[in-house]
Amino acid sequence: MFVILVYDTAAERNPAVLRTCRQYLHWVQRSVFQGELSAAQYRNLSEALRRQLDLSYDSIRVYAIGSPHLVQIEAFGAELGHSDSVL
Amino acid sequence: MFVILVYDTAAERNPAVLRTCRQYLHWVQRSVFQGELSAAQYRNLSEALRRQLDLSYDSIRVYAIGSPHLVQIEAFGAELGHSDSVL
Repeated sequence: MFVILVYDTAAERNPAVLRTCRQYLHWVQRSVFQGELSAAQYRNLSEALRRQLDLSYDSIRVYAIGSPHLVQIEAFGAELGHSDSVL
Repeated sequence: MFVILVYDTAAERNPAVLRTCRQYLHWVQRSVFQGELSAAQYRNLSEALRRQLDLSYDSIRVYAIGSPHLVQIEAFGAELGHSDSVL
């Protein structure tokens, strides 16, 4: 499946959350990861995030679509995904 | 089409960008809007944003999927979409 993940987490948890997301997905814009995952990979990512998040404060939103061919992507402005500056 | 829009814009442009996005989409998490748009509405939104953004600094990423039925959504933590606190 094609996955879009948008995170809004407290600054002190950002490095751990980013590290977890990067194990599974590509960072494409500040707050946004995307990539293709199997159902098992998605389950592992989801469980890892639940352990790291403070759900009373942090928010993560995940959109899953059956195939990347069903998704059109338009990017305005600079893509940031290949920078390591926040880690 | 079902649209997911993630914005990363300079603080001074945020109010205008949020106002434009809210004319077309629902705010569902910090940085994230979603909703259903016709092709004409999407074109209008896209043109309005291009006029407002500084593309050397701001980034907006838009994912368009043919139908909301093709998208599974999972939200971890609080949804913020119904707050007006940032405007």
